[in-house]
Amino acid sequence: MVTDARLDELVGAIAPLDAPAMAAARARQDQLTKPPGALGRLEELSIWLAGVRADPLPRCDSKVIVTAAADHGVARHGVSAYPAEVTRQMVLNFLAGGAAVNVLARQANARVVVVDAGVSVPLPPDPRLVVRAPMRCSGDISTGPAMQRGLAVTTLLNGVDLVAEQIDAGADVVGIGDMGIGNTTPSAAITAVFTGLPARSVTGRGTGVSAEALEEKVTRVERAIAVNRPDPSDGIAVLARVGGLEIGLLAGVCLGAARARRPVVVDGFIATAAALIACAVAPECRSYLLAAHRSAEQGHAAALSHLGLSPLLELQMRLGEGTGAALGMMILEAAARVLTDMATFAEAGVSGSDEVTAGEG
Amino acid sequence: MVTDARLDELVGAIAPLDAPAMAAARARQDQLTKPPGALGRLEELSIWLAGVRADPLPRCDSKVIVTAAADHGVARHGVSAYPAEVTRQMVLNFLAGGAAVNVLARQANARVVVVDAGVSVPLPPDPRLVVRAPMRCSGDISTGPAMQRGLAVTTLLNGVDLVAEQIDAGADVVGIGDMGIGNTTPSAAITAVFTGLPARSVTGRGTGVSAEALEEKVTRVERAIAVNRPDPSDGIAVLARVGGLEIGLLAGVCLGAARARRPVVVDGFIATAAALIACAVAPECRSYLLAAHRSAEQGHAAALSHLGLSPLLELQMRLGEGTGAALGMMILEAAARVLTDMATFAEAGVSGSDEVTAGEG
Repeated sequence: MVTDARLDELVGAIAPLDAPAMAAARARQDQLTKPPGALGRLEELSIWLAGVRADPLPRCDSKVIVTAAADHGVARHGVSAYPAEVTRQMVLNFLAGGAAVNVLARQANARVVVVDAGVSVPLPPDPRLVVRAPMRCSGDISTGPAMQRGLAVTTLLNGVDLVAEQIDAGADVVGIGDMGIGNTTPSAAITAVFTGLPARSVTGRGTGVSAEALEEKVTRVERAIAVNRPDPSDGIAVLARVGGLEIGLLAGVCLGAARARRPVVVDGFIATAAALIACAVAPECRSYLLAAHRSAEQGHAAALSHLGLSPLLELQMRLGEGTGAALGMMILEAAARVLTDMATFAEAGVSGSDEVTAGEG
Repeated sequence: MVTDARLDELVGAIAPLDAPAMAAARARQDQLTKPPGALGRLEELSIWLAGVRADPLPRCDSKVIVTAAADHGVARHGVSAYPAEVTRQMVLNFLAGGAAVNVLARQANARVVVVDAGVSVPLPPDPRLVVRAPMRCSGDISTGPAMQRGLAVTTLLNGVDLVAEQIDAGADVVGIGDMGIGNTTPSAAITAVFTGLPARSVTGRGTGVSAEALEEKVTRVERAIAVNRPDPSDGIAVLARVGGLEIGLLAGVCLGAARARRPVVVDGFIATAAALIACAVAPECRSYLLAAHRSAEQGHAAALSHLGLSPLLELQMRLGEGTGAALGMMILEAAARVLTDMATFAEAGVSGSDEVTAGEG
């Protein structure tokens, strides 16, 4: 169903994880000074990262979080607890370094790349702001499509190109995060379309709306699906009909990172909706995704489960921006450091297991 | 039941969390540029840390992990998959910086304080090694006590004094970790004594023993309790009868940190056994503990549950050394940074919630 030639080429260029690098990493884990398997998920992560990078000793030094912002036509129906101008205000907060993602990225030693993917009112020129806004605010998905199909392809390719630049500049790891008042509504619609679950079961309170506003939100998600009837086998169509501009850009980031063999640390509900789009466009993309955390937002667990992703953290966070991705990157870096930096039994002069000695040895 | 005058004084000096600092931190969280509660557990942690430090803007900059090592008489019964000399070899690995705790502590920007709390064969002199070994190897708990009661008090006070030095030198946060071939056996005995659970349900495979060795280990834990009959209301007696030298020292670290209003990031099963001892000696100590993770080791969940601690991470780790504590410190630091470093709505010029505006405002 992919029709754009550049996207077709991209999809074909996403390779499976590298088995020899994974085997080498697994063998090294068993030589490190600890009982085999004693670092649990960190060991698995390091082996996965070796497969992603096709490198038995992968580094996790240069980290980038792409935080994409856009506005949503559906926000006019009061589906968020905040007014739509907060999207733009928060972009300014990101640029000033005062938002949660800035604080956590500084700790993780990650760079935040702030992207205007379609904020309603243009932002003042700023060399740190990346503007990739093919339209200003998506259409109201509860009455029609979010955007034209050609524009959905453009948003995807914008993400692909943007992450390619970051990888050319040295990024080892890419995180994805979002900002967009109203964007849990398209994310719920996307999740409902791919999982087949009813709108109500994947629609939550987002920024913290009232019970009454939640009812309105569920209705808007139901209408978005009824009006647009997106075909879940056509990822671009799902994006165009019930998606959003930042969601499309982040889906493109997933695709571009996967093609370049970089791990994608997926943030919360909106970033996972972007990952659902990316994996519908290119199923092999799934191998390159790491779920940073399980958000408290209703519907996130179902989206993760549909992708077969097991989140690293569960801290009842539901902010987005890439805040969970920043924390998840710390755990991924820990896994990489263990693999590359720990001493082996031979190097440290530590005796091996009695069991191994008495058994196979 | 505490009889040593210095311990009595210490127990009385551990104050509750500071309510005004917590109230101030909670109020600030609601002014930061995010929906109230959207950072979930990070917000709760920051408020707790404010209460620990009696400071509405607590820092988490200077971090120390105390990794205490000792040998155990019970190890002679094959309760570990590794020979007892590995305790000493791993201390040398810690000093050389090649162990997992070193790698993770470097990432967390934490200092590892390596303590010989009772390793069988004395280690070569090294200015970086802290020697607090009142005896070399504890007694075989399956046939008699681990140590005399007076010596148990000494190990506790050694931990108290050691952490006081670190805090005087500026430590904001203290982690505790262990190394000791055989030490999941006393930890299982301690957990069984305090929780009242049968030995079998809290005894696991430790470094990865066979099913046969696990049976022997369960038997040794059962005998330790039957022979020593420790009174769970007397923490010092539990330590003396079925504990270990590194466990006692780490329990003392908990007590000393609590007295000085520093958070204690508790590692895995053995560190939690030390926390059980500390809280039996001084119940208020509990308020100062943070469980870094839930270990894969059988019995850890029961020990955490007895203390009412909810672990931050669940990564199937079971190594000890303070590895989980290093990761947990990163999350705690993230919580502290969010509270102290994020912009408020007023500072960033971001609009507040419609709900609040339309409702109470």
